[in-house]
Amino acid sequence: MALAGIIPGGGASLRDFTASRSVQVVDRCRLSSKIRAVAAPEKQDVRTSLRRNENIGKLQAGYLFPEIAKRRRAHQEKFPDAHVISLGIGDTTEPITGYVADAMKQAAAGLGTQQGYSGYGSEQGNPKLREAICNRFYRSLGRQPQEVFVSDGSKCDIGRMQMMFGSGAKAAVQDPSYPAYVDSAVMIGQTGGYSDTGYEGIEYMVCRPENDFFPDLSQVRPADLIFFCSPNNPTGAAATRKQLQELVDFASSNGSVILYDAAYSLYISDPNCPKSIFEIPGAETCCIETCSFSKYAGFTGVRLGWTVVPEQLRYADGQQVIKDWNRVTNTIFNGASNIAQAGGLACLEPEGMKEMQQTVDFYKENASILLQTFEELGFKVHGGKNAPYVWIAIPGKPSWDTFADILERTHIVTTPGSGFGPAGEGFVRASAFGHREDILEAVQRFKKAYGS
Amino acid sequence: MALAGIIPGGGASLRDFTASRSVQVVDRCRLSSKIRAVAAPEKQDVRTSLRRNENIGKLQAGYLFPEIAKRRRAHQEKFPDAHVISLGIGDTTEPITGYVADAMKQAAAGLGTQQGYSGYGSEQGNPKLREAICNRFYRSLGRQPQEVFVSDGSKCDIGRMQMMFGSGAKAAVQDPSYPAYVDSAVMIGQTGGYSDTGYEGIEYMVCRPENDFFPDLSQVRPADLIFFCSPNNPTGAAATRKQLQELVDFASSNGSVILYDAAYSLYISDPNCPKSIFEIPGAETCCIETCSFSKYAGFTGVRLGWTVVPEQLRYADGQQVIKDWNRVTNTIFNGASNIAQAGGLACLEPEGMKEMQQTVDFYKENASILLQTFEELGFKVHGGKNAPYVWIAIPGKPSWDTFADILERTHIVTTPGSGFGPAGEGFVRASAFGHREDILEAVQRFKKAYGS
Repeated sequence: MALAGIIPGGGASLRDFTASRSVQVVDRCRLSSKIRAVAAPEKQDVRTSLRRNENIGKLQAGYLFPEIAKRRRAHQEKFPDAHVISLGIGDTTEPITGYVADAMKQAAAGLGTQQGYSGYGSEQGNPKLREAICNRFYRSLGRQPQEVFVSDGSKCDIGRMQMMFGSGAKAAVQDPSYPAYVDSAVMIGQTGGYSDTGYEGIEYMVCRPENDFFPDLSQVRPADLIFFCSPNNPTGAAATRKQLQELVDFASSNGSVILYDAAYSLYISDPNCPKSIFEIPGAETCCIETCSFSKYAGFTGVRLGWTVVPEQLRYADGQQVIKDWNRVTNTIFNGASNIAQAGGLACLEPEGMKEMQQTVDFYKENASILLQTFEELGFKVHGGKNAPYVWIAIPGKPSWDTFADILERTHIVTTPGSGFGPAGEGFVRASAFGHREDILEAVQRFKKAYGS
Repeated sequence: MALAGIIPGGGASLRDFTASRSVQVVDRCRLSSKIRAVAAPEKQDVRTSLRRNENIGKLQAGYLFPEIAKRRRAHQEKFPDAHVISLGIGDTTEPITGYVADAMKQAAAGLGTQQGYSGYGSEQGNPKLREAICNRFYRSLGRQPQEVFVSDGSKCDIGRMQMMFGSGAKAAVQDPSYPAYVDSAVMIGQTGGYSDTGYEGIEYMVCRPENDFFPDLSQVRPADLIFFCSPNNPTGAAATRKQLQELVDFASSNGSVILYDAAYSLYISDPNCPKSIFEIPGAETCCIETCSFSKYAGFTGVRLGWTVVPEQLRYADGQQVIKDWNRVTNTIFNGASNIAQAGGLACLEPEGMKEMQQTVDFYKENASILLQTFEELGFKVHGGKNAPYVWIAIPGKPSWDTFADILERTHIVTTPGSGFGPAGEGFVRASAFGHREDILEAVQRFKKAYGS
């Protein structure tokens, strides 16, 4: 057996512990427990010659939400009897509504029959679903079914988009923003290293109460890609038509591409706030929109979303972006689950649309309860009207400390603002996704802990 | 509205056709139809300043299988009354078996209830499913549940893996091979341009009948990543224990990482051919294995697979690959559909295992029928014994021509060997996935068209 490539990490040689190198390979478990008794295990490990991708190495700590989940578990272990309430990750809690759940049940049962079985679907999604999404949300805005790409969710689409755009693109993000934008930009090599002000090479567009959570575009340096989420995660701010027109004009004049994340659009009730970027004249030549059934239909676990790439969107060389998106979709994706797609189709029928609105309304009422509570407690609080997130200003100490303080005092999980970017410091996000009784219980705990 | 960035592609200026530039943005459809009457439309298109990712530009034509589907559609249009039989893309055709379909039906129905509802699961998969996969296939080989990452399929995992390894890695592939390996390597920037011998920077390990479809490793230049699929798609060859030991030793001695694609493992009946690379001593420090429910349980449309990354697998700097894989999974993936995962769990219970074996046996019998047919017709034919693919030598003309010839003469879709790489030239692949009556009908047509 050729073993020349097995390189002990340094320190004591592996040969000190084993009679022959082949023992080391064949019975690693037993061996490493022996080694651990006498030396640090990392010094004994076999290494490949593969160099770690330095872009992955630039990523800070863990991805935000698993980190929150880890801290929640640690807290639960410390207080095993506590009923921990999560207003942290925006995770839906209410059952999928009857018409939609039934459609998925039928689809799953159908897969067990010759008539109902389907194998590989189009990577781009079931044509009927592409058409239904287009008809419901985009046809009147000039978009076509072939521009709608069904996926297993916006987060996954963002990763694939970054693989499409590559390391040469420069990204701008709202600060604070959903961490997948920045982290995927880092992973693909669009950035330099990290410092207190964020990653080198990312243009952070500060969104704070002072500017109505809309960036001062006169201060923003041009970027190739502008990630923009409205209603915003985490601030809960929904951009107005006037603001979005300003954004589209800014992108057009600089030749930028806007990656518009509309995952919370159905939470908008303010008629001044568009539900799609394609409501804005000029968007079709500078915008991609991604959206999701997760927060409308409780599909966080079912996994279904979509991305719209207009045929008019072109690179500097005149080629169509949609052609590359199609190629990327074909090559590293294989379509969303057919059962999930059957659920998506049901969502877009009249009965399903009604049910989705009921689900959205339920979480919006939660948001309203939270918003009112924090206002009554004297906090400066934002969002919560056109979005399922409430953004609470708690200045004066690091938001991870505030997160810990809230958890200690109330057994309630929130999300620290700094997890969303440097300008999130001094805030925490409370998610409105939760059972009503948990939201009401959370309100009581907040009042007890923070009331005067 | 700022429009300075809207650059006509050259040629006649846009101003020649419109009174004001804002008209051009607001009413593109009407405008472009006007323009088309007088000039080539591509010259009038609005462009962004975003430079196309040159790596995407290196990709040749379309991804193989959508290309096949396109040609099939064109043929069907030409012969609208023909019953076209597809032995092209390896797409399952038989209903999902009762126990498994029922589990998914229950899971979907459960999502409509408070007790059965679940939102975001772990990005890495339901812990119960990770454990079940480990127990069924890997526990006895020393692997642990936390090393098993559940996904929406191996193709998608390959894309994410390439994003993890980045542009600095150099890849080797079996030639011929499943096109996602090479195409994803191109996309992430691991290669140079394309020529008749393939992509510059990819190490093509020729697998032909002359070498028993196993590469002559003495002729292979060391690579960082070695993609290896056994039983192989497209050749149908299953590597023996001796061959895989040779491969693992080769990787170990060069410090390479093997990305082992075991998607067809359950099709192996030869006891000399391992079903997992982790049966090979030394694999745990140089191998990743990816696998899928697609071809075992008919989940091509349901979307469920997994990837195993051993904790012992390390980069040159000693860091664990699994930590980066976990970070990538957290950042650009959100878990497989919970309904699909419920189906996966059912597959791994005794009743589900029995059903999966029945499904596999059915397609193996199809393969056997096809193999025998081509042998009787006097073709040199390979595979089909431990794999659902039959690899037919038809030398002397380009395999795309052979593909077209078969389609014209029999209305049967195959896959041209050259679609899998340069060494696939002179072969076509016939997939054994199909209804039995279609396989038998295909046999009659082949005999009529190619019999003496």
